Amino acid sequence: MKITIGDYLIKRLKEIGIRHIIGVPGDFNLQFLEQVGAADGIEFVGASNELNAAYAADGYARENGIAALSITYGVGDLGAIGGVAGSAAEHVPVIVLSGAPPLYIMKHNYPVHHSLGEGDFSDMARAYQQFTVGQGLITHENAADEIDRLLRLALRHQMPVNLQIPSNLTYLYIDVSDEPLRPVSHQSDQERLRAAVSAMRQLFSAAKQPAVLIDMDVDRFGIESELLAFIEATRTPFAALSTGKAILDENHPLYRGIYQGDDSEPGAQALIEQADFLLTVAPRFIEWNSGSFSAELPEATTIYLGRNHVKIGTEAFEAVALKDVLDQFLDRLPSKHQPQTEPEPAEPGFDLEADKPLAHDKLWKQLRPFFRAGDLIYAETGTASQAMGSLKLPKDTTYIASLIWGAIGFTLPALFGSLLANPQRRQILFIGDGSFQVSAQALSRIIDRGLNPIIFVINNDGYTIERYIMGMEESYNDIPAWQYHRLPALLSAKNRMLTFHVTTQGELAQALKDIEEIDHGALIELHLHPLDAPEALKKFGPDVAAFNYGPRGPENELPEDE
Amino acid sequence: MKITIGDYLIKRLKEIGIRHIIGVPGDFNLQFLEQVGAADGIEFVGASNELNAAYAADGYARENGIAALSITYGVGDLGAIGGVAGSAAEHVPVIVLSGAPPLYIMKHNYPVHHSLGEGDFSDMARAYQQFTVGQGLITHENAADEIDRLLRLALRHQMPVNLQIPSNLTYLYIDVSDEPLRPVSHQSDQERLRAAVSAMRQLFSAAKQPAVLIDMDVDRFGIESELLAFIEATRTPFAALSTGKAILDENHPLYRGIYQGDDSEPGAQALIEQADFLLTVAPRFIEWNSGSFSAELPEATTIYLGRNHVKIGTEAFEAVALKDVLDQFLDRLPSKHQPQTEPEPAEPGFDLEADKPLAHDKLWKQLRPFFRAGDLIYAETGTASQAMGSLKLPKDTTYIASLIWGAIGFTLPALFGSLLANPQRRQILFIGDGSFQVSAQALSRIIDRGLNPIIFVINNDGYTIERYIMGMEESYNDIPAWQYHRLPALLSAKNRMLTFHVTTQGELAQALKDIEEIDHGALIELHLHPLDAPEALKKFGPDVAAFNYGPRGPENELPEDE
Repeated sequence: MKITIGDYLIKRLKEIGIRHIIGVPGDFNLQFLEQVGAADGIEFVGASNELNAAYAADGYARENGIAALSITYGVGDLGAIGGVAGSAAEHVPVIVLSGAPPLYIMKHNYPVHHSLGEGDFSDMARAYQQFTVGQGLITHENAADEIDRLLRLALRHQMPVNLQIPSNLTYLYIDVSDEPLRPVSHQSDQERLRAAVSAMRQLFSAAKQPAVLIDMDVDRFGIESELLAFIEATRTPFAALSTGKAILDENHPLYRGIYQGDDSEPGAQALIEQADFLLTVAPRFIEWNSGSFSAELPEATTIYLGRNHVKIGTEAFEAVALKDVLDQFLDRLPSKHQPQTEPEPAEPGFDLEADKPLAHDKLWKQLRPFFRAGDLIYAETGTASQAMGSLKLPKDTTYIASLIWGAIGFTLPALFGSLLANPQRRQILFIGDGSFQVSAQALSRIIDRGLNPIIFVINNDGYTIERYIMGMEESYNDIPAWQYHRLPALLSAKNRMLTFHVTTQGELAQALKDIEEIDHGALIELHLHPLDAPEALKKFGPDVAAFNYGPRGPENELPEDE
Repeated sequence: MKITIGDYLIKRLKEIGIRHIIGVPGDFNLQFLEQVGAADGIEFVGASNELNAAYAADGYARENGIAALSITYGVGDLGAIGGVAGSAAEHVPVIVLSGAPPLYIMKHNYPVHHSLGEGDFSDMARAYQQFTVGQGLITHENAADEIDRLLRLALRHQMPVNLQIPSNLTYLYIDVSDEPLRPVSHQSDQERLRAAVSAMRQLFSAAKQPAVLIDMDVDRFGIESELLAFIEATRTPFAALSTGKAILDENHPLYRGIYQGDDSEPGAQALIEQADFLLTVAPRFIEWNSGSFSAELPEATTIYLGRNHVKIGTEAFEAVALKDVLDQFLDRLPSKHQPQTEPEPAEPGFDLEADKPLAHDKLWKQLRPFFRAGDLIYAETGTASQAMGSLKLPKDTTYIASLIWGAIGFTLPALFGSLLANPQRRQILFIGDGSFQVSAQALSRIIDRGLNPIIFVINNDGYTIERYIMGMEESYNDIPAWQYHRLPALLSAKNRMLTFHVTTQGELAQALKDIEEIDHGALIELHLHPLDAPEALKKFGPDVAAFNYGPRGPENELPEDE
């Protein structure tokens, strides 16, 4: 069939489930946006700047499976690249559609605006090469092939890809098959599959202390239900990395908490490190989720499940599809292990003292009963992620904290994206003031679109997480004092958001009651003291300082000759 | 002498005139910020996010000569990189100080936060390699050499450079000479110098229609006074590219207007293209300042002045320092040319109609008398830059429009930076609402610091510049309706800014009167119709569309078989 390049791309995006293209218009992508506007079942949604658009695409992809981002050349590419790199770090598939200058301009090296003005168009591609799993410059000849290749790469790897689309090509026709995008599936080599499953069975039969360890790729590979089936069929206890928090139910009787080496929750370290059969994906240990690299998995008895391989001890089984491995392994499993179901420790009670100012030691206990099964909860890097890390969440919670990339300002625009993807789901954000100021424009887009989030802004006059790392009282950790709860009224003519200014437990209790049922969102500004912090942060801060700076610094400034 | 690496860097930054380090604190640069805080005569100034910090550094450098930007690894690097690339595109020197993970972490490829979590630390350096003129990873061994090398590179090339500074090194001592930074100077080869100047003299002696063409590098090389001396001594007329607007006085009797090929102001095209002696730098023609590449310089009689070479026709004279060339050439120049001083066309009058709504056809005429000699004026990409491009500015105006990079959102944070550099100068910004929303946080920083700008926000409900390119009524060019004039009160507890909400000529006249003398800044929200535009934009928009999209598009959607 004959179809324009732009419409072909739109058709493919719809086939993989994309209903919103998030981005910022610019003169090199307007032509494509015209085609998006004319298409059914897909819509362009603007963000206020490219970084916010990239974060929104990330949030959209996490809730929708995949996202598309449309930006203009150069200024748009580089405005977005930090967010795209975050998606790469967190294994989130985003199709980055860069509107590029006309093809002949690029081929003949004309200097144009939105570039360095030197006729070199390789620099943006090289920058994106560092942070995406595939890149391509679309031409009339390669359009169908390249679009299909890059979309399938993103789906297969659950990673961002970059398409440069010259502005003068999108209305030109190509002749293509009308088949839908070839699915991303992988046929196992049957002998290798049998060998891998047999090795897993053998290790499992001999095991007396099996365990499962969850990390983010369990979600990215979509193998939650298979692992849960294994856990329940065999009564095998499990733990999670902080980067895999709440992917499986934290209230499950076989859940043993967060594993992070020497900093694990009670019981989790022995469970994981002494396991004689440890089933896991490739856990992504960084300094912050490994107890400063103290995590030590039992290598000889650890089964690493990859997308297309299994590794057991020093033996690697290539050419096996993950779903095949799990299906066959799950077939005929004995319920051999019967660990004590540990008694659920009683949640520490919360007794309201209505006039008492908010403080972290009580805040999260007061908030805990507000969460419901099925919530999507964002915890921004800072006091929010530090406090939420040890808070047990209800069943079917999706928890998003972006612990590897760790960019402040990520969650508010990401919330915009996930609300677009799933406006009916209850979505709750906890964000500090310093982070809010990074990308505050996203609030305007959320309101203008009539979305319905619950946003808690923790106003503690600056970068409290950094104060605990270094510079407790230093002015570089201060920020301007905004009146967050008064902003919604100024940021959209369509504002109907409920807002609250909360300084005491009593005011918070009232606010939580008032927002039980809302339909145009709420922003609750929580006032906390700049030096108040969750317990976790009081340990985390000095740990980070020791790791980052070593023994020499402002607290220990030695003259050279001592 | 013995000095810590951090203090050595600070000493060098102070030597080259930097008194403010602009940036965002993050855990990999806090240690260095402690050293900045302890130092005299230099100060860290925070921005709300890294892109704003990079733009602020650009504005600081334009007013101060050079700037320094301090950010954290990965998230900070990529947040800032769009602004840094803008500085590269516009030839603005910014020292990018990236706080990096501890050196042993980078050398031994540990996965850490703020990276892709794969133990690869080459990706950020590779990304920065595309957009800076020099990069270096600081170690204890190379610190003094690398810091000196990179600072001198930035000064020599008037371009950004990137230093990666591992977080665990800044408090360690090095033993260095106490000499100041070796100056960036270039000793000419004397024979080549004589040959170049002799060739220039020869061409000039024979010339009957000499001319001078000004572009941004005249400012970056600092040769304004030499060129003006030549112009006045020889009574040679001159024109400027739009990217070199107002670098020499636009009211000078020998000024002939903006040259941009077929789109030049009257008289400028003939002056330049028929010159038999054309003195210029390397004019940086892109599609937007060249009349869609219709500019044609008289190559055989054009003298291109480079930093270290001169090119005349097909002959290049290497190894000559620009200042030497100009000094020798200016020595003994005949006043041979006596062009008619063209009568100054009378400024079109403006008659106030107090109740008349604001519209572009009158707005800029009304504003023109408000400008004073010595103002620094920003025109953001959009209706502002389109209107200001043809407005004659008073003597000693600095005009900043960033026409090559052309990123919307640049000017507000850049204004923050240039105000830091020179708080006593009157600095005026014209910015559209779409651009304002990109980087609005910078307003908060300007107010919180007690700075004194005059900010005109053109509120016309979206991206009017893009409406004229494509999508005149399309929703992708809409943005949320903000109440700009009410924002200052919410964005800093220290706010004392005057604000105005202006819809008519009379209200504008009153506002202009009220802000004649202010000391804590003003924000004037100007309401214009979304489809109202300066005349220049009505031509520019369709030109851009034709250039970017070619003959096929939504207005001319052809079936394949016709």
